[in-house]
Amino acid sequence: MESNPHIEPKLSLELYVYSENSLEKHHITASKQIQSFLSSQDKFWLNIIGIHDDVLLKEIAEIFEIHPLALEDIKNNQQRPKLEEFDNQVLLISKMLYSKGNISKIHTEQVSILIAKNYIITFQEEDFDLFDGIRTRLENPLGKMRKMGPDYLAYTLLDAIIDEYFILLEKLYDKTEELEDLIMSNHHKSLLATIYRHRKSMQEIKKVVWPTREVLSTWKKSESPILRKKTLPYLNNIYEHAVEIIENLEMQRESITTLVEIYMTNISLKQNEVMKTLTIIATIFIPLTFIAGVYGMNFEYMPELEWKYAYLSIWIFFVLTTAGMVYYFKKKKWF
Amino acid sequence: MESNPHIEPKLSLELYVYSENSLEKHHITASKQIQSFLSSQDKFWLNIIGIHDDVLLKEIAEIFEIHPLALEDIKNNQQRPKLEEFDNQVLLISKMLYSKGNISKIHTEQVSILIAKNYIITFQEEDFDLFDGIRTRLENPLGKMRKMGPDYLAYTLLDAIIDEYFILLEKLYDKTEELEDLIMSNHHKSLLATIYRHRKSMQEIKKVVWPTREVLSTWKKSESPILRKKTLPYLNNIYEHAVEIIENLEMQRESITTLVEIYMTNISLKQNEVMKTLTIIATIFIPLTFIAGVYGMNFEYMPELEWKYAYLSIWIFFVLTTAGMVYYFKKKKWF
Amino acid sequence: MESNPHIEPKLSLELYVYSENSLEKHHITASKQIQSFLSSQDKFWLNIIGIHDDVLLKEIAEIFEIHPLALEDIKNNQQRPKLEEFDNQVLLISKMLYSKGNISKIHTEQVSILIAKNYIITFQEEDFDLFDGIRTRLENPLGKMRKMGPDYLAYTLLDAIIDEYFILLEKLYDKTEELEDLIMSNHHKSLLATIYRHRKSMQEIKKVVWPTREVLSTWKKSESPILRKKTLPYLNNIYEHAVEIIENLEMQRESITTLVEIYMTNISLKQNEVMKTLTIIATIFIPLTFIAGVYGMNFEYMPELEWKYAYLSIWIFFVLTTAGMVYYFKKKKWF
Amino acid sequence: MESNPHIEPKLSLELYVYSENSLEKHHITASKQIQSFLSSQDKFWLNIIGIHDDVLLKEIAEIFEIHPLALEDIKNNQQRPKLEEFDNQVLLISKMLYSKGNISKIHTEQVSILIAKNYIITFQEEDFDLFDGIRTRLENPLGKMRKMGPDYLAYTLLDAIIDEYFILLEKLYDKTEELEDLIMSNHHKSLLATIYRHRKSMQEIKKVVWPTREVLSTWKKSESPILRKKTLPYLNNIYEHAVEIIENLEMQRESITTLVEIYMTNISLKQNEVMKTLTIIATIFIPLTFIAGVYGMNFEYMPELEWKYAYLSIWIFFVLTTAGMVYYFKKKKWF
Amino acid sequence: MESNPHIEPKLSLELYVYSENSLEKHHITASKQIQSFLSSQDKFWLNIIGIHDDVLLKEIAEIFEIHPLALEDIKNNQQRPKLEEFDNQVLLISKMLYSKGNISKIHTEQVSILIAKNYIITFQEEDFDLFDGIRTRLENPLGKMRKMGPDYLAYTLLDAIIDEYFILLEKLYDKTEELEDLIMSNHHKSLLATIYRHRKSMQEIKKVVWPTREVLSTWKKSESPILRKKTLPYLNNIYEHAVEIIENLEMQRESITTLVEIYMTNISLKQNEVMKTLTIIATIFIPLTFIAGVYGMNFEYMPELEWKYAYLSIWIFFVLTTAGMVYYFKKKKWF
Repeated sequence: MESNPHIEPKLSLELYVYSENSLEKHHITASKQIQSFLSSQDKFWLNIIGIHDDVLLKEIAEIFEIHPLALEDIKNNQQRPKLEEFDNQVLLISKMLYSKGNISKIHTEQVSILIAKNYIITFQEEDFDLFDGIRTRLENPLGKMRKMGPDYLAYTLLDAIIDEYFILLEKLYDKTEELEDLIMSNHHKSLLATIYRHRKSMQEIKKVVWPTREVLSTWKKSESPILRKKTLPYLNNIYEHAVEIIENLEMQRESITTLVEIYMTNISLKQNEVMKTLTIIATIFIPLTFIAGVYGMNFEYMPELEWKYAYLSIWIFFVLTTAGMVYYFKKKKWF
Repeated sequence: MESNPHIEPKLSLELYVYSENSLEKHHITASKQIQSFLSSQDKFWLNIIGIHDDVLLKEIAEIFEIHPLALEDIKNNQQRPKLEEFDNQVLLISKMLYSKGNISKIHTEQVSILIAKNYIITFQEEDFDLFDGIRTRLENPLGKMRKMGPDYLAYTLLDAIIDEYFILLEKLYDKTEELEDLIMSNHHKSLLATIYRHRKSMQEIKKVVWPTREVLSTWKKSESPILRKKTLPYLNNIYEHAVEIIENLEMQRESITTLVEIYMTNISLKQNEVMKTLTIIATIFIPLTFIAGVYGMNFEYMPELEWKYAYLSIWIFFVLTTAGMVYYFKKKKWF
Repeated sequence: MESNPHIEPKLSLELYVYSENSLEKHHITASKQIQSFLSSQDKFWLNIIGIHDDVLLKEIAEIFEIHPLALEDIKNNQQRPKLEEFDNQVLLISKMLYSKGNISKIHTEQVSILIAKNYIITFQEEDFDLFDGIRTRLENPLGKMRKMGPDYLAYTLLDAIIDEYFILLEKLYDKTEELEDLIMSNHHKSLLATIYRHRKSMQEIKKVVWPTREVLSTWKKSESPILRKKTLPYLNNIYEHAVEIIENLEMQRESITTLVEIYMTNISLKQNEVMKTLTIIATIFIPLTFIAGVYGMNFEYMPELEWKYAYLSIWIFFVLTTAGMVYYFKKKKWF
Repeated sequence: MESNPHIEPKLSLELYVYSENSLEKHHITASKQIQSFLSSQDKFWLNIIGIHDDVLLKEIAEIFEIHPLALEDIKNNQQRPKLEEFDNQVLLISKMLYSKGNISKIHTEQVSILIAKNYIITFQEEDFDLFDGIRTRLENPLGKMRKMGPDYLAYTLLDAIIDEYFILLEKLYDKTEELEDLIMSNHHKSLLATIYRHRKSMQEIKKVVWPTREVLSTWKKSESPILRKKTLPYLNNIYEHAVEIIENLEMQRESITTLVEIYMTNISLKQNEVMKTLTIIATIFIPLTFIAGVYGMNFEYMPELEWKYAYLSIWIFFVLTTAGMVYYFKKKKWF
Repeated sequence: MESNPHIEPKLSLELYVYSENSLEKHHITASKQIQSFLSSQDKFWLNIIGIHDDVLLKEIAEIFEIHPLALEDIKNNQQRPKLEEFDNQVLLISKMLYSKGNISKIHTEQVSILIAKNYIITFQEEDFDLFDGIRTRLENPLGKMRKMGPDYLAYTLLDAIIDEYFILLEKLYDKTEELEDLIMSNHHKSLLATIYRHRKSMQEIKKVVWPTREVLSTWKKSESPILRKKTLPYLNNIYEHAVEIIENLEMQRESITTLVEIYMTNISLKQNEVMKTLTIIATIFIPLTFIAGVYGMNFEYMPELEWKYAYLSIWIFFVLTTAGMVYYFKKKKWF
């Protein structure tokens, strides 16, 4: 699990002020600009991209009276997903998971969502297009998002994040199927390392989804007035998704365990085959070689040597012995 | 787990209007026809086959005031079994499981049941004969179904679905026994792949039954007036069934694990036997071949070569050595 | 787990009417005979052997107003042990386990106990002598059974059934010890199959005892007036027994797992020994045979061949090489 | 787990009558003697050694009004540790564990403690010096034991018993270390049997400690007036001990599992080494022997045979081939 | 897990008296000096280094009215982490974990924290620089520590201890990665022993972190007035840390299990390769050697021997046979 450390974070502040009938979008450049919106009757969503500008974050924390512990959690991008209730705000830490092409390397990005009575603030490390769909839905004047509170907006953000997990899950599943095919047909030495990395990917996803489920469970049980009851049925939905992802991971994990077992048994079976080949060859030829050796001895008195049909007889003997052995191995199902 | 995507879904709406004393069956072709029954004093069951007609579903959702989330769950046939209570309705998502002939391929079909005070609506993807028995019981004017509420009808539907699971379980059990016989007697290379697929079938059934048990548990604890207390003793019954299926799957799973162990040990035992054969042959003939080799050497001064009984003696030596070795291996129980 | 299907069930109805001061025993032949006892002030125990006479069971169900679901559970002898409370009755389904001689085949028989305020009815498939001791205790005018309610009688029946489990457990334990001895000393091919069947027996007992513990737990927590508080201390006793049986099964199961491991390691060790024998023989004689082969070559100019002590030297070389090898293997602890 | 059945139990009754200011010790020979102390204001401890004198036990049960089930539990020395509350008494069944010298044989002795408002009665099978320390502390007029109630005395007894478990644990730990050393350095055939017995010892201790923890948990939650609140902090202490023993056993168990794995891998490694030796020898000499065989053929026209430097050349060839092979195996790290 | 027994414990008493506006530091040499601070309005922190001076500890226990059981827990440095509430004090037992350089040897030191309304007392075995940062923060007149109660100070101490665990975790993680690399590339005999010790280190950390989590959970749920509600959000933070450590250990443990599996499979694969080499060599040369042996026989009538091109033909036969075998093995993918 890696967060790209080399990318220079571009700081950007987007502000969406919305109500049932209106939507305004502002690009903020200084924290003071925000203050004018605080007294507004409208709900607003402040999306902060880039969490490494300490000065700015401090200013924002002062404007919105964010609890120091909440601020610390937002800045520390190694946080586990969690939901914490403060006096006038609820902090929801979530993790975006994505992989570029190859499933064996999963990237994580922390998305912190601060929910209050009439606004939400989101904090991201980098700008991703994940929330584009939500912006579009917000622009729709008939959509539910405009009518419902900021907690519903938080729900849609979380929903978008969890939908992304399913894409990873799909990729994992394809990889599992690929491994299954490889193991069932033919095996390579490097397979175990691949399986090991595959399992690690699963662990990483599980490490994020498991506490996410707890987050959702806490939200469901929360009695904070910020998290309205009306949002609950929607929440149940993503809770179910989180449970499904976990179950799915467990199932894939079990499949992988069985695959490793099959792999190891295949090695044993292959070894057995090698052993059989050796044994058949050795068992047939070692006695014959002994007989040949006997008649290669240089004793002076060896009556058979002078017998006319001796050489022919010995060849007949060789052929019959071999045929007998082959028959014996056939009967034992060694071929 | 596959739902056949190629089958063109035939849309069909059946409406059963029933009371203790009467039963009418209607084939609905337009959603407007339903409205006339809404005000009726009688209970009714609307069975909708084919969930892919978005327009129709939307019309029905409007007529019955179905919550948008409930509608979404009904349309999404990848839903986990669940029970969700809405204001005037309870949505029960369940899964039919069946396999055509071969147990290694399990098909799933979602059956959504929407229960209200005086009606239930069922949504299926395809028409199955699963509910035929229930139709027959509904036609019986003396049956309990006519007297009890729509939640009892929902119970009988769920009961029919879960009874179907037992048929799968039976097939799984037969397969387990078959595998047991195969492993105990003789083994083939492809056995592990079969076991792997067998285990996967179990996983798939468990994936459905586990949340079904939760559904039943939620129903039992529910305080919704739609789910009447009178239905509870019946519910206990199918709850027990779900528990039994889960226990049974666990037991079969454990058996399979033991069988794999036995299989692997059998391979080891077989390998051991091959090794013994090789070792016996090699141990007997390699030293004899050496001796024969010795008397095949061309040294000028080899006194034994001229001795008259040398050749006879060496044969006696060969036979005695072999007999000694055979005796030794017999004593070590290698034969 | 099998219930003998070929035995023609003998139908028999025993009625014990008892109070603190009296005991009467009646053999009932028609269900109408029972009605006369219903109004009696005395407690009674109706023992029905043979549950396949549908007509009779229906008559009895009508007389005692047994709930249709209870009746169904009584007739279906594949029921899991359970305790269910109905309006005026408590139904307790339990399972008798026994094995004739060989522990590897465990037979099950369902014993259903219907407890009411002043009577209990027991339903058995066949007549067993299991309850003889209870009959004797009932005949004792000073015994507790006469004084206490029918729920106490139910407790004694359950106690007798669970005591029987201990006998099976004892047999299982002996079998485990036998397997331990076999594995520790010597091993046969068929051992794994025996272990497999042994484990299955454990599973079968556990499958019955586990829900039985739940039954007892439900009884303990029940607030039904039929299950009197006075009986509770006695119940604790058999609850402890059920827990003990489960723990014991777990321990034996673990032992068996370890034994299988030992068995497999023994096979590996044996294989290693075979390999060593082969390697020692081959390593000693293959180089010697090569040397012998060298002096069997027919080159014209081979100076050693004419040397007088060549043959003697080569034997000395053979002996020394062999001794060296033997010393080397001894040092490596291969012998 | 064995209780020595051959030892003739010596019956002995010790009575300690104590209050904050006084302590008297009496040796009781007849149960009637006890009655005179019953009405005393002082607390007393009756220690009964030998539980097989049915007559005496019955007399004592009558004097102290012991519930028949409690008496049965006291007499049955196969009881699981448990705490049961009766009307005026609390029965605590505990198990003493000890091993004479060798940890592989663990002995169990049941110690039953009956706690009442102002007395406790302890029942042992044999006389052990386990409680000597407690007798000494009781004799100390300044000790806490004199001041506190009989439940505190029961706590000290249980504490002494659990302290004994730690001694066993220490021995087990030493054995685990010993096994670790044996496996890490060198292995013997009998090791697996030793490990098996070692694991069994752990199981036996766990079988006793696990329910003991439950006993302590029940005591902690009990609301019986006999078990005073003042004793609770002391109880927490031994509860922690029980938890620690269980955790420790789990850790040792895990270590043992890993050790077995290492042992099995060591066997595989050793087998691999044997295989390599064989393969190196065979791979080097079999081709050479073939070449020697070729020039041992008796064809008339074999031009090499007459070439003067043929014999020298072939030796050079032998040496070079061998060197090449050795180099190849070195590169493959087979040496 | 070892605590260095040879280090002579230096006894040292530090007293920090602090309030929002002031901070005094005193070095105490006699317990009587403390008494003068007891009546002060200020909060104070008494840090005691060296817990083996029984006399001093007893004096302190008397001054602060520490419960005898609490004192015992403080003195016994084998205690499990725990939180226990006494009448006016809360005792928190925690464990410092550290390793000097090599992660395979983890040292433990018990740090006991006694929290009261307006003071905390900490007991350490040795002086560590772990708390230096806290001293610095205490000196900061603007810091939160000065304003909050002693329970907040206890929290910061615990936080410092748990932060130390993360350092160990990091080291463990590096070791796991190192093992992964070793196993993936090349293997040595001693690897299993290393893995075994690595696992043991994990167990030791887990053994401390697990109860620490319970401690934090108990604190969170505690209703003691000493543990103020205001400290709770901070506590949540370290609770999350403890959970994270446990999850991380579980993940590493799983990785290690998979690595061992890979290691064992690698051995099997290597063995398979050795076997193949042997089989290929033997299968090619044993039949050829037999043929060479045949023409080394000394029969008088062997027509081939006199045929002019016999020798050439036999070499062609040798080469073709070898080529055929090589082709066969290539096709079977043995190379």
